[in-house]
Amino acid sequence: MAAPTKIILDLDTGIDDAMCLTYVLGSPEVELIGVTGVFGNVQVEQGVRNARAILALYRQNHIPVIAGASRPEQGSGPYEVEEIVEFIHGHNGIGNIDIPDASEPATTDAKDAADFLIQAYHRFGQDLIIVPTGPETNIAEAMRRDKDFAHGARIVLMGGAVTIPGNVRPWSEANIFGDPDAANYLLRTAPQITMVGLDATQQVRLTKEDTARWRGNPKGDFLADAVDYYIDAHDRTAPGLNGCYLHDPLATAIAIDPSLGRYVPLNLKVDTDGPTRGRTIADETRLSKTPKTCHVTVGVDKERFLAELMSRILRVVGS
Amino acid sequence: MAAPTKIILDLDTGIDDAMCLTYVLGSPEVELIGVTGVFGNVQVEQGVRNARAILALYRQNHIPVIAGASRPEQGSGPYEVEEIVEFIHGHNGIGNIDIPDASEPATTDAKDAADFLIQAYHRFGQDLIIVPTGPETNIAEAMRRDKDFAHGARIVLMGGAVTIPGNVRPWSEANIFGDPDAANYLLRTAPQITMVGLDATQQVRLTKEDTARWRGNPKGDFLADAVDYYIDAHDRTAPGLNGCYLHDPLATAIAIDPSLGRYVPLNLKVDTDGPTRGRTIADETRLSKTPKTCHVTVGVDKERFLAELMSRILRVVGS
Repeated sequence: MAAPTKIILDLDTGIDDAMCLTYVLGSPEVELIGVTGVFGNVQVEQGVRNARAILALYRQNHIPVIAGASRPEQGSGPYEVEEIVEFIHGHNGIGNIDIPDASEPATTDAKDAADFLIQAYHRFGQDLIIVPTGPETNIAEAMRRDKDFAHGARIVLMGGAVTIPGNVRPWSEANIFGDPDAANYLLRTAPQITMVGLDATQQVRLTKEDTARWRGNPKGDFLADAVDYYIDAHDRTAPGLNGCYLHDPLATAIAIDPSLGRYVPLNLKVDTDGPTRGRTIADETRLSKTPKTCHVTVGVDKERFLAELMSRILRVVGS
Repeated sequence: MAAPTKIILDLDTGIDDAMCLTYVLGSPEVELIGVTGVFGNVQVEQGVRNARAILALYRQNHIPVIAGASRPEQGSGPYEVEEIVEFIHGHNGIGNIDIPDASEPATTDAKDAADFLIQAYHRFGQDLIIVPTGPETNIAEAMRRDKDFAHGARIVLMGGAVTIPGNVRPWSEANIFGDPDAANYLLRTAPQITMVGLDATQQVRLTKEDTARWRGNPKGDFLADAVDYYIDAHDRTAPGLNGCYLHDPLATAIAIDPSLGRYVPLNLKVDTDGPTRGRTIADETRLSKTPKTCHVTVGVDKERFLAELMSRILRVVGS
């Protein structure tokens, strides 16, 4: 299948989401046609505000950011950011770094994130790739509303952990744990998924020596300050790593260039009941069904990915 | 590394263990230098009796069968075969088929299974491969007794489930669940493990059309009757499969010819505490440690394996 040329990032912006935005803007192969927002690392309103502010900092005000779900499918009451997540991303989601609100954010006629996703799919079809880096709530909502989208959209998601333990529970990764029901529906229904989970993202690491190369102007200083905050948080959550994992950026990079990964094809599900709620695992009812609907990333070309990350980010924030 | 030419099967004989024995005896590349016995599908005494009786049926009385562990490392009280396991293998472990006891079983100077494994390793080194198809108790015991064995032995084990659900618990496969502590010690310690778990074994299936080809003499009739019993049991445990999985034979085949599988290299552990006791998953303390100590089988060359299975079994039981 041909490489997609249009991309939508579905973000809970977040520090590594900020790296995603930068990576995509530094990728001439794809056009970022919009950003959809979901709860997760921050409340959805804060994430949307952050994405708009970062796009404004990068002078990309024309790219729309559309708010989506504020809580999981089966949630009741307001969503609350877990204390550890606030510790990792800062209370404002971008390492407590202060950047101005966007003065004139772009608008669209889409009434919400799911609507924007559906409209874009009907316009661009297989030329569009969607990269959710938070809970799957927006994507699942779009799938429930529009069967063409459900059975056609190309999705590269950051989330899950198949071969390794989770990061919020011993069997569950944060994005999937954020809305196991939505993720389960997506994994059991969508036919063209690439999963970039902890299996892959914990194989790659960024250090303060790397972020130092971005400094020298307001764009680079912002991103380096935010990511350094994230690296400091990893000193507590992943002692001895001496850097940070690259969860969301790796999913973005693989969406643009699948040859960066190695994959095991599986038909996945999410455990929604019992003690392992939130676990990503093969669906035993579709064990021998082919073709497999999900490619689970189990290996990464680390050197090439890190080189791409540096060059694409520098293309945006370089002096 | 060169292909091994000596093999020890560590069995809880069992119907699919009986297929293993037959497969190895039909494999001219390797010499079966002995069988060690462990509790599992049956009590250890019954498994040892079964292995000896099958070897006698095949006129291979010279191959010694040495009894090992009768219960898990941390077990207390006598081991009891679970009802579902007795249903799958029959009360005598070989589908309630009646074959005579071995009249003159071979003897060795090894005092137990672990001792036999250690002696064999010191004699044959990397030329020996060990294939445990039950709980890992004997192998772990040999490793605890002899550090050379622990850090040198080549092991291809049937057990575990990394990418797919377990078969005795939603997160645990029967052999690992039989002794999670022994399996955890083995996976965290031994440097040269190939894991052939449900990820791979549930990709291959044998039918009654296949077993019918073995019939026509006492050897073939015994094996076909036993495996047909096992296939009938699968009608209840895996409805719609219309056949049986090939757990232990696939591990044996891969031990002899690794090119039959596709692998993901991982440093594995077993959850020994908490609700997921018995789960095989990457060890988060060794995520980036290389070389990986375990090759987890995730793919099988199905057609070639089934062709090898038929031709090797027919070499032994063919009229």
